[in-house]
Amino acid sequence: MDLASFYHEPKGPFSYAYDTETLHIRIKTKKDDLKSVTVLAMDPFNWKPVSKDSHVYAFAVDMMQRVEMKKEYVTRYHDCWFAELTGFNWRRIKYAFVLDDGKECCFAGCQRFTTLERDWTPPKDYTNYYNYPYILEEDLYAAPEWVPDTVWYQIFPDRFNRSAAAAPSEEILEWGSDQLDGNGKKFGGNLQGISEKLDYIRDLGCTGIYFTPLFDSPSSHKYDTRDYFKIDPSFGDNETFGRMVEEAHKRGIRVMLDAVFNHCGYEHPFWQDVLKHGRRSPFYDYFYILDGDKEIVPDTELAAREGYYFGEHLNYRTFAYTEMMPKWNTGNPAAREYLISAAVYWTERYHIDGWRLDVANEVSHDFWREFRKRIKAIRSDIYILGENWLYSNPWLQGDQFDAVMNYEFTWPVTRFFGTNVPAEEQYTAEDFQYAINQLLVSYPKHVARNMFNPLDSHDTARILHFCGDNTELVKLTYVFQLTYGGSPSIYYGGEVGLSGDEHHNRQCMPWNPEEQNQDLYDTVRRLIGLRRQNPLFKEIDLEWLSAGESEETVVYKKSAGGATLYVLLHNSADAAVVKLPYELQNRRLTDLYNGLELATASEIRMEPYSFLLLADGE
Amino acid sequence: MDLASFYHEPKGPFSYAYDTETLHIRIKTKKDDLKSVTVLAMDPFNWKPVSKDSHVYAFAVDMMQRVEMKKEYVTRYHDCWFAELTGFNWRRIKYAFVLDDGKECCFAGCQRFTTLERDWTPPKDYTNYYNYPYILEEDLYAAPEWVPDTVWYQIFPDRFNRSAAAAPSEEILEWGSDQLDGNGKKFGGNLQGISEKLDYIRDLGCTGIYFTPLFDSPSSHKYDTRDYFKIDPSFGDNETFGRMVEEAHKRGIRVMLDAVFNHCGYEHPFWQDVLKHGRRSPFYDYFYILDGDKEIVPDTELAAREGYYFGEHLNYRTFAYTEMMPKWNTGNPAAREYLISAAVYWTERYHIDGWRLDVANEVSHDFWREFRKRIKAIRSDIYILGENWLYSNPWLQGDQFDAVMNYEFTWPVTRFFGTNVPAEEQYTAEDFQYAINQLLVSYPKHVARNMFNPLDSHDTARILHFCGDNTELVKLTYVFQLTYGGSPSIYYGGEVGLSGDEHHNRQCMPWNPEEQNQDLYDTVRRLIGLRRQNPLFKEIDLEWLSAGESEETVVYKKSAGGATLYVLLHNSADAAVVKLPYELQNRRLTDLYNGLELATASEIRMEPYSFLLLADGE
Repeated sequence: MDLASFYHEPKGPFSYAYDTETLHIRIKTKKDDLKSVTVLAMDPFNWKPVSKDSHVYAFAVDMMQRVEMKKEYVTRYHDCWFAELTGFNWRRIKYAFVLDDGKECCFAGCQRFTTLERDWTPPKDYTNYYNYPYILEEDLYAAPEWVPDTVWYQIFPDRFNRSAAAAPSEEILEWGSDQLDGNGKKFGGNLQGISEKLDYIRDLGCTGIYFTPLFDSPSSHKYDTRDYFKIDPSFGDNETFGRMVEEAHKRGIRVMLDAVFNHCGYEHPFWQDVLKHGRRSPFYDYFYILDGDKEIVPDTELAAREGYYFGEHLNYRTFAYTEMMPKWNTGNPAAREYLISAAVYWTERYHIDGWRLDVANEVSHDFWREFRKRIKAIRSDIYILGENWLYSNPWLQGDQFDAVMNYEFTWPVTRFFGTNVPAEEQYTAEDFQYAINQLLVSYPKHVARNMFNPLDSHDTARILHFCGDNTELVKLTYVFQLTYGGSPSIYYGGEVGLSGDEHHNRQCMPWNPEEQNQDLYDTVRRLIGLRRQNPLFKEIDLEWLSAGESEETVVYKKSAGGATLYVLLHNSADAAVVKLPYELQNRRLTDLYNGLELATASEIRMEPYSFLLLADGE
Repeated sequence: MDLASFYHEPKGPFSYAYDTETLHIRIKTKKDDLKSVTVLAMDPFNWKPVSKDSHVYAFAVDMMQRVEMKKEYVTRYHDCWFAELTGFNWRRIKYAFVLDDGKECCFAGCQRFTTLERDWTPPKDYTNYYNYPYILEEDLYAAPEWVPDTVWYQIFPDRFNRSAAAAPSEEILEWGSDQLDGNGKKFGGNLQGISEKLDYIRDLGCTGIYFTPLFDSPSSHKYDTRDYFKIDPSFGDNETFGRMVEEAHKRGIRVMLDAVFNHCGYEHPFWQDVLKHGRRSPFYDYFYILDGDKEIVPDTELAAREGYYFGEHLNYRTFAYTEMMPKWNTGNPAAREYLISAAVYWTERYHIDGWRLDVANEVSHDFWREFRKRIKAIRSDIYILGENWLYSNPWLQGDQFDAVMNYEFTWPVTRFFGTNVPAEEQYTAEDFQYAINQLLVSYPKHVARNMFNPLDSHDTARILHFCGDNTELVKLTYVFQLTYGGSPSIYYGGEVGLSGDEHHNRQCMPWNPEEQNQDLYDTVRRLIGLRRQNPLFKEIDLEWLSAGESEETVVYKKSAGGATLYVLLHNSADAAVVKLPYELQNRRLTDLYNGLELATASEIRMEPYSFLLLADGE
């Protein structure tokens, strides 16, 4: 038995309270090493006198629950086991594992491993059991119920739609006239223009819009805020925004704003005051000045430029090495209050439904804890989404975010389906399955359900670009995204065939029907519609099935309540005859996407980059 | 290379901010599998144009720092590697590992492992580097500087000393007349009595007292509080307490109180009000009543008893199944405010130095976060110590506790040195070293420095009992405890030879010199004195040395600043000639304990249960 590979840790994704009376438990063991695993579990206070009338008590191991673990997911090196422990009315659980490789049994406790006899009884050493001390409501992770049902539409506001009613402006370039996304270029997209396209978004099936920043700022991306309380004049004003939110809500569309609280823009009046008055500014401690005896900005020309200089010259903390973005000191109570009051303002007054937190993992946990309390006190079902790009459990304990932008989901997709990816980063079907499995065991199941899953965003190449501009191939990525649990996000224009690398990803939305790929649009719309109808699309857990020898066709199923969904994705430029998994052979199934009955044989012909969504059961 | 055994996780004991510009990094790998490990580390924003004038930027891997990891500790199945990353002025670090087994090199990133060529350069895939996003002061773990210099003395107040000036009382038993610690029995120990023994405590060398609860309560242990704002009348009154704190402070002794905030006593007026008025009580939601339609206490006779009934009859949450201890609902804001206001009261008015938090891990993280903020605002250098018995990292992130009662330290000691331990729980020298090593890698180094390390307490058998009442053997445990990093605690009377199992561990302190083991007292006092003089005693890290074939002699060294301390513990009833580790052979060293110069040969004769403290260097 390979005990070096055994992994479990209490209080985290491997041991978490799913609800007030349910604990989810996971372990990892070396792949193919074990035949079975049993969890032993008991209330830690089940002690009994060792004999009648004795005042000596012992841990009552004869009352121990035994729960078989399920081998749920396999990664490259590990089997990942899962068990749900329920019925612990007193919300306290001690537990340990019995590992069985068919030859011997091993007790895996929190302190050490011990060998068990074949006819083992639970060991009595109380200190060698893991402990989940108490499930407390106030610490439970909880997110808004509407999130898993939402498909997001992400809008970069300068580039989505310019209302014909907007006044002409010299600053503004002709719509779509230049696809380079230089931060200074303005195309005049505005809120009125967005309002005019809410029906479009609703018809696509999206029920939430994530707006990159809307607040007053000099750039087109607006991540350099000048005024947190004001809609950027090029987009409209606060009233225009309020009306747009109302119109969105009327159509069942929720609105999420971007909170850029890591830093502000260079032109923010507080920063300007610091530049002018130095230490005498009341805002001096709102920022991080490194050496108070030196000039804050020694070379004023530098401040006019933007770029990466590895910071040698910087005398203040910034986002990255971007002089134009001075970092807020959220450890300063007044700075903190200022930022939170802005979030409170938009939440209270404009009834928004979510906050996406920019560069969230470079702002303190302490700040986000207060942010959450203040915002959730106004509206408990508001969605709090951190930008975090990587492993994010420390932010997802229930006290900070509801979810993160799940680029850990994006990468396996772009690397398996993408053809326009560096060779050394490309994933085989096996790599892909292992990576998705790894992701599925990285977070608690109820957290996974609320994860914001993008195929692309304003910070990545567009998904069609990853797919080498092949619209048949890109459909497979939408199928995967929309049949995967979580809260999927469509980056505006992806549905009609916008492409572009990470420097050409903020284009003007083409509204001329001739510039839109209608076939792709129909596919995305149909997939979103199927997701809304079919709860299995939203299930977190999936099971991979084997498609014979094929290395390019992946098949997975999702089951719940007697119903099963099968997804076949043929990730190849060549048609192929694929051996069906046994349970799909000689069956009558529903082809959900085409709305047809389908009778299968033992094999099926898959066209290049084709997919099948097959349904079974009621 | 055994990659299934590789373990690292960002943001936790394996990756933590040690100070604002230093990150500590650990990994575990299969024992003896690797020859060397290198950490690659860089600011995540070091991106450079891929060519001159290009607007395409790439992660500048040529600027990567390379830091060799040190194989620091070995456990039964793993090598544990450590590196300190410093000099990251911008407080952001991306990192990954290069594993080398002498035959091949493997890059271990956060997403996957890749094989490297012999003459490797750092891989360019930015997404496969772990991330420590930003070190923020407000999230940094920080504890009072005085804690590692403190040796605690734990007092169970009813049993430590009764002032001769105290009025006689019928309720009170003759001092030492009954060594059973029934919770109803009172021996009349009091604060005046403790004040009279502060010189004793100071002379022993202790500079902190941890008092089990002092507040008004019917029992002798006082974990069933009746009034959180009042010293129990049998101990004195609030003024007596204030005077005692002053007297302790005059002697350089700090005072830590016990905060029993998980539950109160049955006689607490709020609980009594709930029993009387049910839902109409303003305190109803201060507790957890399970079924509001049923009687809260159906059988009033039960309420008069105390014991474990597995809770079938309980209609309210309690500590364990103890009817007498109704659990506070700290999710109720008013209940929370009441408890915190009690802590504020004693902290502000009586200038106490620490709070030990009873049953801390069954109270919410959310409550402790607020508790910490409120208490540290009054006094930033107050010590906050959770009772937690097991793995406690989730409470030690800087936002809740400074330390926990480190029973994970206690168990390896009692199991290796203890003779009075069930056979299946006994540790060999190897088990002991592995368990201590495991503990040393379980917590960040700065957390370990503040851990409260008991050999015993009011909740365990006394250490002398574990040692089969052998006072020579028990000395070895004190040597180990007092040469180990952290904040050691002496349970009152241990220093003069009090013994007893976990049901006989709260005896009256014997003040008659004939009942005190003066030899043991001298040893403990001398060890504490040496610890105060010699900073190496307080170092966290240690290195085990081999003592030839001996399975009963452990040798370890601690080094810093050119000085080295060697500790030899001969855990055997038999004298033996022990082969010295090579670096201790033929040396002139200082025998610290006996204050002698010692010239060593290659072997040394160790008497039964003997120890040596040898010093080298300046």
